[in-house]
Amino acid sequence: MKEFFEAKSIAVVGVSRDKRKVGSIIFNQLLKNFKGKLYGINPNVNTLYGCKIYKNLSSINSPVDLVVVAIPSKFVIDVIKELPSVKCKHVVIITAGFKEIGNEELELKLKKEMDKRDIKAVGVNCLGIYDSFSGIDAIFLPSDRVHRPGKGGISFICQSGAVGGAVLDLLASKGYGISKFISYGNATNLDSIDYLEYLGKDKNTKVICMYIEGLSDGKKFMEICREIDKPIIILKGGLTKAGNKAALSHTGALAGDPRVYLGAFKQAGIIYADSLENLFDYGRMLEKSIKPKGNKVQVVTNGGGFGILSVDSIVLNNLALADISKENKKALKKIFPKLVIVDNPMDLVGDATDERYDIALEYCCKDKNIDIILITLDYQTPLITSNIVNVISKYKNEKPIIVSLTGGEPTEKIRKILESRGIVCFDYPEKAVRAIKKLVDYST
Amino acid sequence: MKEFFEAKSIAVVGVSRDKRKVGSIIFNQLLKNFKGKLYGINPNVNTLYGCKIYKNLSSINSPVDLVVVAIPSKFVIDVIKELPSVKCKHVVIITAGFKEIGNEELELKLKKEMDKRDIKAVGVNCLGIYDSFSGIDAIFLPSDRVHRPGKGGISFICQSGAVGGAVLDLLASKGYGISKFISYGNATNLDSIDYLEYLGKDKNTKVICMYIEGLSDGKKFMEICREIDKPIIILKGGLTKAGNKAALSHTGALAGDPRVYLGAFKQAGIIYADSLENLFDYGRMLEKSIKPKGNKVQVVTNGGGFGILSVDSIVLNNLALADISKENKKALKKIFPKLVIVDNPMDLVGDATDERYDIALEYCCKDKNIDIILITLDYQTPLITSNIVNVISKYKNEKPIIVSLTGGEPTEKIRKILESRGIVCFDYPEKAVRAIKKLVDYST
Repeated sequence: MKEFFEAKSIAVVGVSRDKRKVGSIIFNQLLKNFKGKLYGINPNVNTLYGCKIYKNLSSINSPVDLVVVAIPSKFVIDVIKELPSVKCKHVVIITAGFKEIGNEELELKLKKEMDKRDIKAVGVNCLGIYDSFSGIDAIFLPSDRVHRPGKGGISFICQSGAVGGAVLDLLASKGYGISKFISYGNATNLDSIDYLEYLGKDKNTKVICMYIEGLSDGKKFMEICREIDKPIIILKGGLTKAGNKAALSHTGALAGDPRVYLGAFKQAGIIYADSLENLFDYGRMLEKSIKPKGNKVQVVTNGGGFGILSVDSIVLNNLALADISKENKKALKKIFPKLVIVDNPMDLVGDATDERYDIALEYCCKDKNIDIILITLDYQTPLITSNIVNVISKYKNEKPIIVSLTGGEPTEKIRKILESRGIVCFDYPEKAVRAIKKLVDYST
Repeated sequence: MKEFFEAKSIAVVGVSRDKRKVGSIIFNQLLKNFKGKLYGINPNVNTLYGCKIYKNLSSINSPVDLVVVAIPSKFVIDVIKELPSVKCKHVVIITAGFKEIGNEELELKLKKEMDKRDIKAVGVNCLGIYDSFSGIDAIFLPSDRVHRPGKGGISFICQSGAVGGAVLDLLASKGYGISKFISYGNATNLDSIDYLEYLGKDKNTKVICMYIEGLSDGKKFMEICREIDKPIIILKGGLTKAGNKAALSHTGALAGDPRVYLGAFKQAGIIYADSLENLFDYGRMLEKSIKPKGNKVQVVTNGGGFGILSVDSIVLNNLALADISKENKKALKKIFPKLVIVDNPMDLVGDATDERYDIALEYCCKDKNIDIILITLDYQTPLITSNIVNVISKYKNEKPIIVSLTGGEPTEKIRKILESRGIVCFDYPEKAVRAIKKLVDYST
């Protein structure tokens, strides 16, 4: 499987004069970022985009590690038959028009031809693959429309191209990184199980996020999940009967009974995300945060209302409110002005300074009654400066410190700096607490 | 009450040499945006920020409509006693240090002195007020840190300064407008009930959003809500026992039993938001969308996975899936290529063009089986252009059309244009559907 992500030579079948065509987009993307040998295939032209173009695979006369196919469905089998000529056993088939539109027969035939030659395929009917580390970018969406995320520890397996593309773009714009991205569409021969197994062993992958619509072998899938010692977070499309029906016409996936899925996920130690946003909120948390020793959360804030909303969320999510030790409480009350409330939430109030946060964090980090610190930072108050990021960063290796920041552009800037320092941030306290709950459940 | 928002003359008590001080911030903000007469008060200086500064209110020698107080708590009563000298009965008291820190007595005394003179106060312990229409900006957070939203139909009553400030900044950066903003803190004499009554009649207010921690007279509050013929959406801080305790030390609010609150909200026709994000998601929806005739939602998408997630959400939120009429289904199947799925979701697939959306929307708008259209637009696919905003805008007055767009900066641009045309957008389909549910519940 690593041939997909570590290929040293790639051929793209279906490079066209029209640069908006799928094959052309992928070819040009690779031309820009891929360091290995690249071949374009089109029987009707000699050169395109400044490169020699080959009539067919056989005319390359040299082995190829990976072939990307972007031609109409009826021609795909011909390409498969040609693969042995370049000693290639790994292929990404972007092409749609198989079982998802009722062409079961064509897809079955394709699968047979591939199995016969021991060829492994990502696809059909998929968006492609992306690896931020190796620079392999075989995604058919132009990078000016869909920005690519930088390096990170989350790998994303996605059965829907649209969801995959949107998520890539979103992650990139938020400044979150990714390791590997796999859009696998109809799962003609390689399945979510294969990708999972591979990513379970991949050193660049810390957390696996998945969007799936159906599973071919649920039992085996759960077994693999149980064996993988990394957080696996799944969003399942087609949870309802109506969604299930739509999934069937989308990727040809028979989605199965939702209750069965949810129960099995739980048993297999899979973290279930109930929305696309949560999928990556949980993923970021499990990628970046150090593990807590327990479930006792201390809220530190300079915005009273945010403190209250945070505490409400902690209770409603079945986490425990930390109870700071008597000695530390006493000491902090001595240091802080009278208006500061040393409790949970610890309200440093509207005239809080960076220094006041520094003291609060120092005490919270050394307090044995506290497992996790949730800072609901109100960056709008006048005495908090951008130096707050240095204050918070100082303590990031001592305990899990999660920051919730609600606000517009000035706040967003602070969030991005904190994130770049490896601190997990959220835009609302309710989201932070939901993700903390998953962190605690996974870690304890 | 309108004197607060339509004042023609304002005095700020507590303008200081230090421009970072609360009084100075408000004075300078008003200096910039307020068209009426402005007076600064400080007994120790003659001029500040290029303006004559008065020793006290009495030395103004002219009536003043509104006084803003930003001096230490122990001096506030002196200012109240001086108010008759400028014939003023309306005061915004920013000052903290009353019952929220145990100074019940001082606050009670202040209340008595105000009641005696029939003086109405916003505050104490509050952020101030803001009116995007009149330009009155008596909020103590500097506008370079907290951007102010432009004109809009939502008014926001907020018992927490921090939450209020963060929300203002967030709304501004998203490009959402606001009508009036009231941060009322301890509610010393004017209470949420008074603000509600006023906004219920205010012509610029289409929707009322509230963050409250406690109510002095729950029964009366619910009565007023029942009488107001505008959507009222509430987020309640201190819903849990621990949150309740924190609320007590925050604004001195005794928060009461959460079950009682939630039950009463429902009976009074109040829309309950369970997070800060939902509060404004629901608010925007009820402000902008036309009313649906029923609960039958049609999903139109060019991203299969998004269509499935949308349909799942519709079912899980107890909305109905629209079933497009046989004739329209037949007609669309004739027009569209074979890959397009004319169902619910209607999947215009990855090679969808703006024109394909145009046709789909035309048919959905005229179809009697459809009450609401949810577009989950995948702006990442190559053939959708920025002209899609014109296509969607064409139909906005025919039926409620809600758009969900997931993605980074390119998608965000499209979202902002759609929003500026009055179309309600969301970043995830799950959020869109949650808000649609509130729209349907309120409208039908």
